[in-house]
Amino acid sequence: MKKYCFGIDIGGTTIKCGLFDVKGTVLEKWEIPTRTEHNGSSILPDVAAAIGDKIREKDLDREEIAGVGIGVPGPVNEEGEVPTAVNLHWGYVNLVDQMQKLTGLEVKAGNDANVAALGEMWKGGGAGYHNVVLVTLGTGVGGGIINNGQIVIGSHGAGGEIGHIHVTDTLTHKCNCGNCGCLEQVASATGITFLANRRLAADNAPSMLRGGEISAKTVFDAVKADDDVAKEIAEEFGKYLGLALANIAGVTDPDIFVIGGGVSKAGPVLLEYIEKYYREYAFLSCKDTAFALAELGNDAGIYGAAKLLL
Amino acid sequence: MKKYCFGIDIGGTTIKCGLFDVKGTVLEKWEIPTRTEHNGSSILPDVAAAIGDKIREKDLDREEIAGVGIGVPGPVNEEGEVPTAVNLHWGYVNLVDQMQKLTGLEVKAGNDANVAALGEMWKGGGAGYHNVVLVTLGTGVGGGIINNGQIVIGSHGAGGEIGHIHVTDTLTHKCNCGNCGCLEQVASATGITFLANRRLAADNAPSMLRGGEISAKTVFDAVKADDDVAKEIAEEFGKYLGLALANIAGVTDPDIFVIGGGVSKAGPVLLEYIEKYYREYAFLSCKDTAFALAELGNDAGIYGAAKLLL
Repeated sequence: MKKYCFGIDIGGTTIKCGLFDVKGTVLEKWEIPTRTEHNGSSILPDVAAAIGDKIREKDLDREEIAGVGIGVPGPVNEEGEVPTAVNLHWGYVNLVDQMQKLTGLEVKAGNDANVAALGEMWKGGGAGYHNVVLVTLGTGVGGGIINNGQIVIGSHGAGGEIGHIHVTDTLTHKCNCGNCGCLEQVASATGITFLANRRLAADNAPSMLRGGEISAKTVFDAVKADDDVAKEIAEEFGKYLGLALANIAGVTDPDIFVIGGGVSKAGPVLLEYIEKYYREYAFLSCKDTAFALAELGNDAGIYGAAKLLL
Repeated sequence: MKKYCFGIDIGGTTIKCGLFDVKGTVLEKWEIPTRTEHNGSSILPDVAAAIGDKIREKDLDREEIAGVGIGVPGPVNEEGEVPTAVNLHWGYVNLVDQMQKLTGLEVKAGNDANVAALGEMWKGGGAGYHNVVLVTLGTGVGGGIINNGQIVIGSHGAGGEIGHIHVTDTLTHKCNCGNCGCLEQVASATGITFLANRRLAADNAPSMLRGGEISAKTVFDAVKADDDVAKEIAEEFGKYLGLALANIAGVTDPDIFVIGGGVSKAGPVLLEYIEKYYREYAFLSCKDTAFALAELGNDAGIYGAAKLLL
């Protein structure tokens, strides 16, 4: 009988590792550095060595290990291959095959944002649901779509690339993707800063934001302090994100939207602004869809990676 | 061994029936009227009788019948229950359970638009693909999302309700759903007529559309005749629909969009206008997604219904 499972989240600077029991309790959590030199060729051997060391340290019976789940910052196809992962300096890597050979264990892999969504569904803000959309508001906007318990990967591994949903024709500067008017440009930490600077430049309305550092954090701190200009900025943010999520609901109709990433540290006030516009734009049947904040933070990836096997 | 399967498409006025072999060849196709009186209580017994008659007529061995697949114009949950189906005058109906009792055969059911998408994936415009979005441009705009070969049903059975994706803030009249700015308001047959009338009223530019009947058909006939005003209308239609499909690609990333419904009779010229804007708005990875016209017409429902079991 299987008792244990490894969940690995490979990031551009750090690899997060977790040893779980099959019920999803994390037994041990540690990190190793990501060595990207030589086209990242040490990354998988390093992960395999870390797993081997842990098996010996804890004296685990290999027969009791369900396998190794891995999240990577790039697309992963259904064969477990990664065409390219820029942050790891990888070109094509046959990830699953290579890791199975290195570890002698069963291996499954997925894109990191999708895997994090699976983690939040399993043990985080989306626990108890099977249709979950995770929205990650960080430097960019990422996402992961879980439909009927399964990750929506899509044809090009771009399932859940919701940061590039077009939400406005009012922008003149380009998104990193080359398009103009993407959700990421107005709902990420960077996007909120953009909205704030644009609003502050529009007139001289008094605001505690003036003269200080502008960031998603200072904007939502000002919202909590009842600053009118900050509340206008939050309304604009909420309108764009609420609209995008309403449109997602018209496609996959999730049970719940789970909001994570650095911006979500603003807390429940963030959801108020998003939900207000979501409920305005959403199709009748979907107006009651639940919202929650993500709960696993940076550990969502290792939870979801482990869940790939369980 | 199973040799046959029934595919049933229940509409508001007619019930389409098909007898298929398990490879998907339609052996027999017929229709019966939909009797909606008495809360549509005759509908399922009528379907069961039609199936029973066909089994006797063809002298089929019941052991060789894989079952009965059914599409209905309303939401169907994973238990095969229909909470309500307005066009059939149905309140709650335990569809799968009731039909299994009436026929003694295995029964599966789905929403008609979703089931049509499955049909187009199996034997129509999306054949050979596993990630398909069917877009039905009729009086309204409907859709069905197939991800990894499975229908995306969603939490409220609203998966694929793409007609109510918000695409514009420029409308002042309401959609049937109560919202304002839905795709259906600008991309259905009715929506194209609205765009045409609005464009024609804007100035006196010469157009063969003036003075005649305005419909999706006359607009695209005029496009084919190189009418400049009609081409402007088609551009606006293409912009809204291309935008909506680009946003869908950022959610589920299909292999192919299949365009069906009455408006699609305009033919390949329709795809030109949609694809132009799709490729402009779509996320980098998804810009090459394929487009095709639907091929099964009104038979998509019976094909997809049969496929539910195969």
